[in-house]
Amino acid sequence: MSAGCVLVTGGAGFVGSHSVVELVKAGYSVVALDNLVNASMESMKRVEMITGQKVPACKVDLLDKAALQDLFKQHKFTSVIHFAGLKAVGESCELPLLYYKTNVGGTMNLLEVMKENNLKNLIFSSSATVYGTPQYLPLDEQHPIGGCTSPYGKTKYFIEEILCDLAKSDTEWNIVLLRYFNPVGAHKSGTIGEDPQGPPNNLMPYIAQTAVGKRKELSIYGSDYDTPDGTGVRDYIHVVDLAVGHVAAQKKLDEKCGCKLYNLGTGKGLSVLDMLKAFEKASGKSVPYKLCPRREGDVASCYADAALAEKELGWKATRGLDEMCEDLWRWQSQNPNGYKSS
Amino acid sequence: MSAGCVLVTGGAGFVGSHSVVELVKAGYSVVALDNLVNASMESMKRVEMITGQKVPACKVDLLDKAALQDLFKQHKFTSVIHFAGLKAVGESCELPLLYYKTNVGGTMNLLEVMKENNLKNLIFSSSATVYGTPQYLPLDEQHPIGGCTSPYGKTKYFIEEILCDLAKSDTEWNIVLLRYFNPVGAHKSGTIGEDPQGPPNNLMPYIAQTAVGKRKELSIYGSDYDTPDGTGVRDYIHVVDLAVGHVAAQKKLDEKCGCKLYNLGTGKGLSVLDMLKAFEKASGKSVPYKLCPRREGDVASCYADAALAEKELGWKATRGLDEMCEDLWRWQSQNPNGYKSS
Repeated sequence: MSAGCVLVTGGAGFVGSHSVVELVKAGYSVVALDNLVNASMESMKRVEMITGQKVPACKVDLLDKAALQDLFKQHKFTSVIHFAGLKAVGESCELPLLYYKTNVGGTMNLLEVMKENNLKNLIFSSSATVYGTPQYLPLDEQHPIGGCTSPYGKTKYFIEEILCDLAKSDTEWNIVLLRYFNPVGAHKSGTIGEDPQGPPNNLMPYIAQTAVGKRKELSIYGSDYDTPDGTGVRDYIHVVDLAVGHVAAQKKLDEKCGCKLYNLGTGKGLSVLDMLKAFEKASGKSVPYKLCPRREGDVASCYADAALAEKELGWKATRGLDEMCEDLWRWQSQNPNGYKSS
Repeated sequence: MSAGCVLVTGGAGFVGSHSVVELVKAGYSVVALDNLVNASMESMKRVEMITGQKVPACKVDLLDKAALQDLFKQHKFTSVIHFAGLKAVGESCELPLLYYKTNVGGTMNLLEVMKENNLKNLIFSSSATVYGTPQYLPLDEQHPIGGCTSPYGKTKYFIEEILCDLAKSDTEWNIVLLRYFNPVGAHKSGTIGEDPQGPPNNLMPYIAQTAVGKRKELSIYGSDYDTPDGTGVRDYIHVVDLAVGHVAAQKKLDEKCGCKLYNLGTGKGLSVLDMLKAFEKASGKSVPYKLCPRREGDVASCYADAALAEKELGWKATRGLDEMCEDLWRWQSQNPNGYKSS
């Protein structure tokens, strides 16, 4: 018997596709939705290969409310995991309206359609960026939020506030906000992974593409931060650990939990140069790099206190740095052009 | 020659209609837009009576982007003053999605259509509520914003952030954010004023409706605040002063000012009981009241430092408490059922 039918928005994306795999493995049936602006349906085919199960996937944009309403007529969902959204910090500073419309407007359409269908169980992809510049480290869930340094971060913050207000106004809603730290790595099979369209905005895909010769060199933005080696420190988490965290959150939702929020991180901060060296070791490749000025909207250091998720979700990250780099390298070397290779 | 053609959203509403009068008097041509959810086109007829000029007004909802695009095809606007939005604090706690969709979603549509038409001059109706619980008084524009106590307040805060990000991303935008304190009173003619649909959510219309016998008694929410008489203290500003402030902001916009923000208040805090007594004096009526528990989302005291608007806009409030009450009473006694009287 199915544990329930989960609609996964942004299901073809990096975290989305890995989460679909873990949900299917855990016995949930899944329907994936994606507007394919920054993803490919090929990822869903690979998810089906990994899981050995058919996973319905459709091209729907959350800004197309009628299409979303149609989808809800075709399926009886028991919950929604909402990954869909734009996510490039730098681009969000250049195109703030696009980000607010896509992320906040898209979420509002989703919530309206859920409400119309009396479906009130939601897991939302938030981000550690909602904490803004850390006032202390590690970041626990009590750390003040807001004061975000980019429109991207503000979209996550605004959506969190909207969801908390919604849960407060109607206690039938069960909502789990998951604040991701920095997802990296790939599925062990090497068949799904991060596949940015155009030059990657995140560090690890850029490193990986440089290692396969697709990029000339890595630009490291900021080498004068107040960190051990001057480069930015982040809490990198294996995407499969993150995906497993969503299964744990889904179980929490099944308990009718009300509104909850959890950091999903490892609790360990690693610098850009730490990541670079670990990747060189895992891949056996040398990755040329240059040091560049800081990038607008970035903070020096950011890592999680991951205790609450362990306590309340029974979840913690178990995959270490070497595994993140090995799995990323397997994906990248088997798919030097991402999903376009096939 | 016209000083320009201003699109006024929410033009049939309380602050909107008074601002249209002052804009027309100052030589601007105006087109008013309103979805009439909380307003009546009768107000626009009265505006035409007061000004002796035709003011085109149309029923358009900002959530209907196609209708908005049509309107922009029919007129060549030089700026937009954006009043449209839902504004009841209590209702926003009960119906947060409606507020986020209407206020934030409506504004995003407006901004998109403005951008499509290369119109980048905007005045936005913000509110002192963006300051949240005051950390100090009087509130100047440097006071931190956010930490709002209601979804209504958050919609204003979110829109401010979106507008500031937009202006930062594209310096062709000129945007003036006006943070209103508490608009009261009515036009001197007694022909336009505040006309809430259903029981008023704001103090002064409730007092006025009680004085004419339309309401049995005034409920005063909170009598145990840390204020001189225990009732909430606000900065009440005559709506005509506020309207004149928009003309001053429009002139600032005409100077290509970039992104600016100003408090529009008197700088003086008055309690609920102060207002009640002044109204009784102006009207010669006794207003029965009862003291009730505090209302969710309200703060104890809130009043402006109004110096910046005086310095940079050359504007200050000139109409005192007695005039606010006399003008309100003239409107209320001549229109006991608001615009429905006619």
